[in-house]
Parts: sequence; structure tokens; C-alpha cells
Amino acid sequence: MSDRVYKKLEIVGTSPNSIEEAVANAISQASKTVRELRWFEVIETRGDIVDGKVSHWQVTVKIGFALES
Amino acid sequence: MSDRVYKKLEIVGTSPNSIEEAVANAISQASKTVRELRWFEVIETRGDIVDGKVSHWQVTVKIGFALES
Amino acid sequence: MSDRVYKKLEIVGTSPNSIEEAVANAISQASKTVRELRWFEVIETRGDIVDGKVSHWQVTVKIGFALES
Amino acid sequence: MSDRVYKKLEIVGTSPNSIEEAVANAISQASKTVRELRWFEVIETRGDIVDGKVSHWQVTVKIGFALES
Amino acid sequence: MSDRVYKKLEIVGTSPNSIEEAVANAISQASKTVRELRWFEVIETRGDIVDGKVSHWQVTVKIGFALES
Amino acid sequence: MSDRVYKKLEIVGTSPNSIEEAVANAISQASKTVRELRWFEVIETRGDIVDGKVSHWQVTVKIGFALES
Amino acid sequence: MSDRVYKKLEIVGTSPNSIEEAVANAISQASKTVRELRWFEVIETRGDIVDGKVSHWQVTVKIGFALES
Amino acid sequence: MSDRVYKKLEIVGTSPNSIEEAVANAISQASKTVRELRWFEVIETRGDIVDGKVSHWQVTVKIGFALES
Amino acid sequence: MSDRVYKKLEIVGTSPNSIEEAVANAISQASKTVRELRWFEVIETRGDIVDGKVSHWQVTVKIGFALES
Amino acid sequence: MSDRVYKKLEIVGTSPNSIEEAVANAISQASKTVRELRWFEVIETRGDIVDGKVSHWQVTVKIGFALES
Amino acid sequence: MSDRVYKKLEIVGTSPNSIEEAVANAISQASKTVRELRWFEVIETRGDIVDGKVSHWQVTVKIGFALES
Amino acid sequence: MSDRVYKKLEIVGTSPNSIEEAVANAISQASKTVRELRWFEVIETRGDIVDGKVSHWQVTVKIGFALES
Repeated sequence: MSDRVYKKLEIVGTSPNSIEEAVANAISQASKTVRELRWFEVIETRGDIVDGKVSHWQVTVKIGFALES
Repeated sequence: MSDRVYKKLEIVGTSPNSIEEAVANAISQASKTVRELRWFEVIETRGDIVDGKVSHWQVTVKIGFALES
Repeated sequence: MSDRVYKKLEIVGTSPNSIEEAVANAISQASKTVRELRWFEVIETRGDIVDGKVSHWQVTVKIGFALES
Repeated sequence: MSDRVYKKLEIVGTSPNSIEEAVANAISQASKTVRELRWFEVIETRGDIVDGKVSHWQVTVKIGFALES
Repeated sequence: MSDRVYKKLEIVGTSPNSIEEAVANAISQASKTVRELRWFEVIETRGDIVDGKVSHWQVTVKIGFALES
Repeated sequence: MSDRVYKKLEIVGTSPNSIEEAVANAISQASKTVRELRWFEVIETRGDIVDGKVSHWQVTVKIGFALES
Repeated sequence: MSDRVYKKLEIVGTSPNSIEEAVANAISQASKTVRELRWFEVIETRGDIVDGKVSHWQVTVKIGFALES
Repeated sequence: MSDRVYKKLEIVGTSPNSIEEAVANAISQASKTVRELRWFEVIETRGDIVDGKVSHWQVTVKIGFALES
Repeated sequence: MSDRVYKKLEIVGTSPNSIEEAVANAISQASKTVRELRWFEVIETRGDIVDGKVSHWQVTVKIGFALES
Repeated sequence: MSDRVYKKLEIVGTSPNSIEEAVANAISQASKTVRELRWFEVIETRGDIVDGKVSHWQVTVKIGFALES
Repeated sequence: MSDRVYKKLEIVGTSPNSIEEAVANAISQASKTVRELRWFEVIETRGDIVDGKVSHWQVTVKIGFALES
Repeated sequence: MSDRVYKKLEIVGTSPNSIEEAVANAISQASKTVRELRWFEVIETRGDIVDGKVSHWQVTVKIGFALES
């Protein structure tokens, strides 16, 4: 029986509200086209500013999923 | 017409409640003296502990703003 | 009088809800066996995914505490 | 209305002439199959040497594009 | 004649036996769907532990392949 | 006689043409308000893409200048 | 029911033969005093040289284990 | 009552004698124009060489100070 | 005969006078409870400022010691 | 037949004009005394400033060459 | 009596079989021209791929040796 | 007239007393065989411990010198 292999995608999720919601959006979008998502790693957190306030959080995550052998 | 140039400031925002609020405080304070704030990058997240609980989140951000040419 | 010395522990807190709660859980657990916790540093933020949603946030923190001289 | 989500690809462009041309080649190639390219980040610059001269610049870029929601 | 362009994939290979076998598994799996694999870079080496022994090596590699122009 | 002290600013220069021109623009802008600029360090190179081509190079530099004692 | 919390130890395993054996030795030693070892991360690989040959591989790993709540 | 916000400056202190003195010079110079200096972080240590000896230590520090709310 | 295994502790030593003394204090404190200390690695150098002068150097070191097999 | 072994040198090339020319100068100089140069990796890009303009680009490259077995 | 001084070389060893053999080849080659090799540090592990299999492991090591005073 | 080119050596100086003296020893030794030493960069600071005290500081520096064109 062969050993599992995984692939990582690098996705940037955005949200006006929080880091957690930006990550959730990234994962939600990835899950539309990829099955077997298993884990994520936060790589970078940044955002844009409008009128002296955070307009959008932009969080880069690597998302790992199992390849079908 | 000349190309835009930006400057980055390194600011530490604090909050007893959340990373997001600490970042918002950093940006809010910067916006008091600098116009044209455009984006931020989270550089470091840390905090102090009092009585076994997070007392303050201390989040270092780089904040970019457009210089007036 | 001697100078203070501190030790850092590396702890991974988890939470289904937020980064802040995962950190709070790490600190809460550490405070059960170690006194004089003083500060923390977020080292890594990741998590696992179940059914296309974040199942648990896994946040690695270094926690500093004062050694008794 | 949902928040935008982006994906990053890691591409290595090459050119015998310059870093800028190597990046342009990477982007040009990516644009053949992906729409909505938005930004790039230079990750690594290297190259091979033939007869004591730069033969090809090899520049690794991450290229971000908007996913269609 | 245009300059070659390459793409990098980020793959995690696993093996109960060795780092080398984990890498070989990652490459073998990638070669099922991608032609023209050229090189790899080891990014991270980790694994899980069961009963005080390494159960699986988990090695993240970036794998470069030539895009067809 | 006291020893020289320097300060570093973090500036992002932009240019539609090249990395070198983006750096030159950053330095030129800084020299409008600061005297005694001495050196620069390239920290990050990125840019935005419009219609499958580099629209602007965005190069972050740290610029060092001598403080007057 | 509370969320799991983990602790990481930093251990250097050594072996005259291979990286894998050095890691296995680190884990084996840690398992003598700590239960519930779950995963490891290779941090650094180095070694000493005697008579122009590798004498010992010295591999630093972080080893994670579950704290009992 | 609002939360404290801090700003970091990046300063290079120099000294012919020691790292400590170079840092002290950086802080001393910064204190001439900024009040409420609170902490420093050593970022880089380098220097120039004249006649086979260290001529000057050049130590880059980030210096944090409290912004007045 | 089994191969030696080492453990690393992360300790922050402090001193009003010098980096060297801060490191010595960290090692001295560690040696009160751990035998077989072998080496140290300086990880971070920082400090606090009072009245425009360095009040304490805070130096983080990793200290390695041999585990008894 | 033995496997090839390579050595890397770390060279800083300079040029008043461009990054590419600074790299070319580094390689050209290295090729005067070393044969079999094969590849280079750009490690750092910086430069000095005179009268508000880039005076020299200073680009550090690692240059790899084959050792003769 | 003067203190020992060491020099580090950066060497890339290759092997079709394993990381360990690639490192051994690097050290073996270095030992032909340099005496007093003492230790090595693995800096980078990569390789090339031919026909969907690892063709050669390419492991960059820094090798330290004692300079004769 | 051609542009200056520099080479960097990586040297580890040692001293029982201080970081500064370890660096001085590294530079002093390098100056025995290389002329035109210009600058150094501290890369790593570590040391060995004997009887609960620092036995030797081991400081890795990169030393730059001008190549003769």
C-alpha cells in the first residue's frame, strides 16, 4: 500500500472583520474545487487601510490536501 | 508625471482584547499625524501576561503611506 | 543583588474558535505548573481542516517566566 | 456579497538579458492560462554561467490572481 | 525563440523509512500528472511519532517543471 | 569627539520600467527632506500586473543617513 | 471539555550513521521521560568530522507532546 | 482610556570600542529628539576594518518609544 | 553503547553592564539545576531603556546539555 | 566514477549602472582565477548614495563552480 | 597562547543515493586540500529529477576547519 | 576603469573573554594572509561551557576584502 502524498496551495483570503474570517474564506473557496483539505499554515497577515481604518484583512495561508493515489 | 513613493512606519499597537484591535489602535494612532495611510503588514505578535492571563496583545505592524510628491 | 533570569517554554494552544483563545489556552495550561509567567511571543499559526472548515486553530507560543534566584 | 480570494503561483522566468525580462517572461507565460493576474513578488534571483558570463537569469516570482467566486 | 519558464509545486511526501523515500514518493506522485519535472528543493522535514518511534517522515519539497511554451 | 550615528528609513519606490529606476525614485524622494543620505539596502521587490504585464515595480529599500550630532 | 495543549522540547540526537537514526535516538531518549509524544520537526542538521569523515550526525529536532489537562 | 501605542525607529550606532558602546551611542542620540524611549532590539552587528583591526563597530538597533495619545 | 543525546533550554539572562554578563548570568542560573551544560547559542539581544540609557541587557540564549542515558 | 562536487564563493560586484552589471562584474572577476563557474545566486542588493543618487550598486552573489576530482 | 580561529567553506556534494552520501562526498573532496576539518552544517538540500526519479541529491554544507596560527 | 569587486570569507574567531575579542581574533588571523580587509558582518554568536561558565566565545563573521583588479 503506497504512502499518502499531499499538495499545498497558497491562497490569500480577505475579510473586513478578522484574521479568522479571512482564513475561513480562503479555505471555503479552496474547498469548492479541491477535496480532502487537511490543514493550513498562516504565512503572512496584512491588509489595506481606508480612511484610517482597516478596510480588509489579507491573510496568506498554505492549505494542504491529500492527493488521491 | 512622477511615480508614487511610499514610506513605511513601524508601530506597535496594544489591546487587552484581540490582535485585530491592537492593529486598529496602531493604525488609528498613526492616522492622527500621517495622511494617506494605505496598507499594513503584521510583523510580530506578542503580549504580556498577568495572573496567568493575557493582559495586553502587542502587535507590531508596518504601515505604508503615500508621500506627497 | 543578582539580575533576573527568565526561561521560555514553547507551547501549542488549540481552539476551535480563534487565535486569541488558542493562545489563552496555552497560557492557562502553562500557569497550572509554572508561576511568574510574564510574556508570550506568537511563533506559528496553523490549524486542521474538517469538512472544508477550520476545525482547530493551533498556535505555537513561547512563554517567558521568571526563574527564582 | 463574498470577499475576494486570491491564489498565488510560484513561477520561474528566465532571460539572457535582465531580471526585469525574466519576470516579464514568467508573467507572460502565466497569463496564457490564468486570468486576473494582479501582483507578483520576487522570491529568488539566480542564474547559470557559461564561459564566465551570465547565460540566463532565473527569477522565481509568486504571482497572485483573483479566484472567481 | 522564447525563454523557458518553469513552475514550482509544493508537495509533501511521506514514508515510514527515510527522508529520501519520502521525497521519492512526492516526486513519483507528481510525475503521474506533470511532465518535464526537473528539480526539487527540500523545504521542511518533520514527521509523526507513534509509541516513541517515527511513524512517518513528512518531507515538504518544491518541485520544478518546465512549462510548454 | 562623538561617534557618528545613522538612521534608516524604509521607503517604497515605484517605476513602470525597472528595479533600478524604482530605487532611484525612492532615493530621490527621500533626498527632498533628508540630507546626508549614505546608503540603501533592497528589502523587497514586488509589483502589480495589468493586462498580463508588469504595470509598476514596487521596491522597498532601507535608506541610511547620518544624524547631525 | 477543554482543548488539547501541547509542549515542544528541543532535543539534539546523534548517530554515526544517518540523519534518520539521529532523529530516532532523540525521540527514543525523550520517550523515556515523556509520554504522549506526537510529532517532530527537524530544525538543524550538522555534525563533526574526524579524519575527513563524518564522525557523528547531530540533528536538532523539536518534539511535540500532549499535556495532560 | 485608550491603549498605549509605540513607534520603533531603526538607528545605527557606532563605536571604536564595543557593541555595548555603539548601542549606547544610538540610544543617546535618539534621546535627544524623542522622549519616552522604552526598549531596543539589536538587529545587525557589523563594522569596518582598517589596518587589520576593527575601526568601528556599527550596530543597528530598533528603538521603541511610547507615542503620546 | 548508545549515542549521546542533548537537550536545549531557552533562557534569557539580564545584566545592566554587558551582553557577556547577561549570557553568563543565564548560564550560571541554568547550572544550578542542570548538570552537563555544554554549549550556548545567542538567539536575540535586546534590552530596556530608562532615562535615555540602557537599563538592562536582555539576551536570549539556547543552552545545550547532555542527557544521561 | 565519483560524483561531482562544487564550491561556492561569496563575491560582491559593484556597478554605477545596474544590478545586472554588478553581477556580471562579480562573475567576470571570479572567472579570472577560477575555472568551471556554473551558477550564481543573488544574496543581497545594496549600494551607496552620493548627492541623492545611487553612486554604486553593490550586489552580493554566491558563485558555484565544479571542483576537479 | 593565541585562541583558535576557524574558517568555513561552502561546498555542494552530490550523490545519486542519499543525503548522507552527498555530504560524505563534499567532505571527502574538501579533505583532499584542507587539513583539520572539524565540523559541517547542512545549509540546503535539493536535487535534479530525471524520468520522474531523483537523479542526484545536491546538498550544500558549510565545512569548518581550524586555521594554523 | 573597472569597478571594484570584493570577496567575503566566513571565519570563526574565539576568545575566553568577549565577543569583541573573538571578532578581533578572527580579523587578525585573516589579515595574515589577505590584504585589503574592509568590513565584517557578525553572523552567529555561540560558545562552549565548562563547569557552568563560558569557556570560549565562538563568533562567526563574514569578512570582506577588495580583490585586486
